[in-house]
Amino acid sequence: MARVNLPSPIPLKLACEIVNGELIGDPETLIAGVSEPQTAQSGDLVFVWSKTFAEQAFTGQAAAVVTSREFSREEKPHIIVANPRLAMAVLLETIFPPETFPARISQTAIIGENVQLGEGVFVGDYAVIGDETVIGDGTIVYPHTCIGKRVRIGSRCRIYPHVVIYDDVMIGDRVIVHAGAVIGKEGFGFVWDGERHRRVPQVGTVVIEDDVEIGANVCIDRATLGETRIGKGTKIDNLVQIAHNCILGAHCVLAGQVGLAGSVQVGNGVMMGGQVGIADHVQVGDGVALLAKTGLMNDAPPKTQWAGYPARTRMQWLRIEAVLNELPDVLKLLRQIAQRVEILEKKSHQQS
Amino acid sequence: MARVNLPSPIPLKLACEIVNGELIGDPETLIAGVSEPQTAQSGDLVFVWSKTFAEQAFTGQAAAVVTSREFSREEKPHIIVANPRLAMAVLLETIFPPETFPARISQTAIIGENVQLGEGVFVGDYAVIGDETVIGDGTIVYPHTCIGKRVRIGSRCRIYPHVVIYDDVMIGDRVIVHAGAVIGKEGFGFVWDGERHRRVPQVGTVVIEDDVEIGANVCIDRATLGETRIGKGTKIDNLVQIAHNCILGAHCVLAGQVGLAGSVQVGNGVMMGGQVGIADHVQVGDGVALLAKTGLMNDAPPKTQWAGYPARTRMQWLRIEAVLNELPDVLKLLRQIAQRVEILEKKSHQQS
Amino acid sequence: MARVNLPSPIPLKLACEIVNGELIGDPETLIAGVSEPQTAQSGDLVFVWSKTFAEQAFTGQAAAVVTSREFSREEKPHIIVANPRLAMAVLLETIFPPETFPARISQTAIIGENVQLGEGVFVGDYAVIGDETVIGDGTIVYPHTCIGKRVRIGSRCRIYPHVVIYDDVMIGDRVIVHAGAVIGKEGFGFVWDGERHRRVPQVGTVVIEDDVEIGANVCIDRATLGETRIGKGTKIDNLVQIAHNCILGAHCVLAGQVGLAGSVQVGNGVMMGGQVGIADHVQVGDGVALLAKTGLMNDAPPKTQWAGYPARTRMQWLRIEAVLNELPDVLKLLRQIAQRVEILEKKSHQQS
Repeated sequence: MARVNLPSPIPLKLACEIVNGELIGDPETLIAGVSEPQTAQSGDLVFVWSKTFAEQAFTGQAAAVVTSREFSREEKPHIIVANPRLAMAVLLETIFPPETFPARISQTAIIGENVQLGEGVFVGDYAVIGDETVIGDGTIVYPHTCIGKRVRIGSRCRIYPHVVIYDDVMIGDRVIVHAGAVIGKEGFGFVWDGERHRRVPQVGTVVIEDDVEIGANVCIDRATLGETRIGKGTKIDNLVQIAHNCILGAHCVLAGQVGLAGSVQVGNGVMMGGQVGIADHVQVGDGVALLAKTGLMNDAPPKTQWAGYPARTRMQWLRIEAVLNELPDVLKLLRQIAQRVEILEKKSHQQS
Repeated sequence: MARVNLPSPIPLKLACEIVNGELIGDPETLIAGVSEPQTAQSGDLVFVWSKTFAEQAFTGQAAAVVTSREFSREEKPHIIVANPRLAMAVLLETIFPPETFPARISQTAIIGENVQLGEGVFVGDYAVIGDETVIGDGTIVYPHTCIGKRVRIGSRCRIYPHVVIYDDVMIGDRVIVHAGAVIGKEGFGFVWDGERHRRVPQVGTVVIEDDVEIGANVCIDRATLGETRIGKGTKIDNLVQIAHNCILGAHCVLAGQVGLAGSVQVGNGVMMGGQVGIADHVQVGDGVALLAKTGLMNDAPPKTQWAGYPARTRMQWLRIEAVLNELPDVLKLLRQIAQRVEILEKKSHQQS
Repeated sequence: MARVNLPSPIPLKLACEIVNGELIGDPETLIAGVSEPQTAQSGDLVFVWSKTFAEQAFTGQAAAVVTSREFSREEKPHIIVANPRLAMAVLLETIFPPETFPARISQTAIIGENVQLGEGVFVGDYAVIGDETVIGDGTIVYPHTCIGKRVRIGSRCRIYPHVVIYDDVMIGDRVIVHAGAVIGKEGFGFVWDGERHRRVPQVGTVVIEDDVEIGANVCIDRATLGETRIGKGTKIDNLVQIAHNCILGAHCVLAGQVGLAGSVQVGNGVMMGGQVGIADHVQVGDGVALLAKTGLMNDAPPKTQWAGYPARTRMQWLRIEAVLNELPDVLKLLRQIAQRVEILEKKSHQQS
């Protein structure tokens, strides 16, 4: 049941104010919940940004609809907005604001020497914060978080339980780090010394810019020299691996279980589907899109789209995949032709 | 050495009682350990469910064998059962019962307000349990577990160290959640607002039904609206990613590192090999099998088998992979034929 | 900026002593930092092991270069060594030695009964160590680590925050386990009993040999019977999954997100790229190399190289991938030839 009840019903005109739209129909229509079109009950408001769901939304149980002008219909009261999905985000964040935390340092938290905590900081139970670390105003440190020494965390961040941040990592403002993420671990660098893999010390660090979100159990390793960097506004889903010295641009989106080998350079606005892998030192241009499970072994110019492993351009990949389905038949045809050619050759030989 | 010593030797007749089988040979044969056929030592009991290993079991060092009637042989005392693998599970769980825990709340655990703990609940050191959470009888909460507010956990569950359960998640009876798993994190939903990826609030929850097992460092995200749901008896291996709004049926098996994108719907009894990925909104029917590393981008009807990426039916995938090996030779053949046809065409032209 | 400042500048002759090389040029040249060739500033020492970077190193801003004899040039003071990458490791570990910890057991650590801690052991805040566990000299147990009962950990290990080690696991000397790793969880073994997947008790254990390094959020499951074993000196990157009963040899390297199904046997010196998967019971010989994303379903003889899924030898995989790019054109050619053959056949028929 993809729907949620509102804490208390609101009139449609209030919803319209919140999303800053144009109301058509009865402004007093009571809204008791928000739903996807398929699961709408009476009293629900549904948000629609495709033709398929518009039909369902306007003819189903919903009390009212939020949609763009092109899908406007007469059957139900509705609100017209430029971007219905954005309107849903705005309505939900207004009605269900994120939990607030008091300015409070748990007595069970262990705070090192010379730690600076900004105004309104919350530090949960059993959190451990190392010496000389600085945390900005309004940041929430959940229970059981381990933050190393000389770490800098900006303001209004949320650091969830069981996150581990190694020494010297730098984190910007409004960054969210979800449970179990590990930031700043030594990179995976070894050199064979004749007898064993010997560690190359990883004396660099990690820099996370403003507005980045890091998923649960993500790993971001520190650089050998210099830094591993995640550009501002980039969003990283769960279980992603980012190796030492990777540099990611702004506003990228990395879906779950993506893996980046060492020193990968990623431009701005790059999209990666789930389980994508990128080989070390590869450069990925601005606006590149990598379909799920792509294995990128070579540089990708800006705005290109890639798929498959080894990665091909999306068009070439689609073309080849289409051909592959015919391949067993093609082989039969080829053998048949070979026989027919042989027959022709024999005849031709007899005639000459 | 894939074998284990029993705490103390037992006579074969006792093993036979435990597995409820039919004993052939000396009931007083002493059993000192349990082993795989390849590693059996004298005194070991081995369990066999294939012809290959039956030979090895009856002619090797083992003291006795548990097998099905078809593999029964005269060389050694043995026990006949319908399902030797099930018999092994039964014998091992009888001889090595899971550790029991006293009804005890650690003094270092931090229990919120209005928390309800059932009878016999164990809460380990440094566990943190949020306000209004309810935990059923006999559930074991290991040290360092973080459980949010208004969470419901059923009876006889085991929640291992460093598990993080976000607010409002619902968990059934006899559920096992292994170390480091993160349940109920906000789903990975964003909308571009013209300047940045803006979070779509994730106001739904996660429901885990009875008898589910969740592996180490698994991530199961909460729904945008409504719920993410794991059906009863479903078993999930380590490092699996389950995105927001996924609905899984009963008795599925997901091997390690599987990744499900948002709103995937999975029927009952579905099997997924390691590193499988499923694209968002895909529907997977009952009894479907996905081979390891399959990338499923389209719906899979019930009882179908899939492999490859993009996924093909297992048969089609095998057929194509077989052809691929011949492909370089095929190309040579084709070019040769093209030349021969050209020669024929010239001749034909000369003749006409 | 892939460079790092030294705590204080050193003369080149001291660097030369540390790496045991041959100094050419001014021994008093002051070194203020270490850098990659591309990011070198004046005062930096750069390490070079390829021709491309040698050019950059000797003509750029760097103060001096460490390289092998073949890349020696006159433009700058330099140090000649046999293995410049090894020299970099040696220099960095001398100048940036790993942090030392005092011999101290945190008052907030909870130490079980009959625990034996060696000399100089450090146990951080909120660590929990179960009964009868033994920890060797000089081992560092970071805050928030959970170590079970009867665990044995050798000397000079580092166990990072939030690591979970289940009961009875054995760990050798100088082992590093990074944050969030889970070692010794029950293996993923079930048998269908007619109504449900029933757990096969996992009564084996895990053995980690000397000098192994285990990445963040890695999962290594305990064996059903016997042991899961990681051979000495093997290095495992983040988010790797190693299922029950796997046996790995010495000095292997497993990149991020590799997944090994149950009972995989791996020889010595095996290299696995990122996101490699290996099916259960597969045997991998000494010195095998698996390219990133390989899905190995069958045994791999020693020293072979594999790629793709299903895995093919690297050569065969490259050959097929090259052909695939031509495939759409090949199909057109084939259809054209089929037509031409048909025309020839008609003519031939008319002529006869």
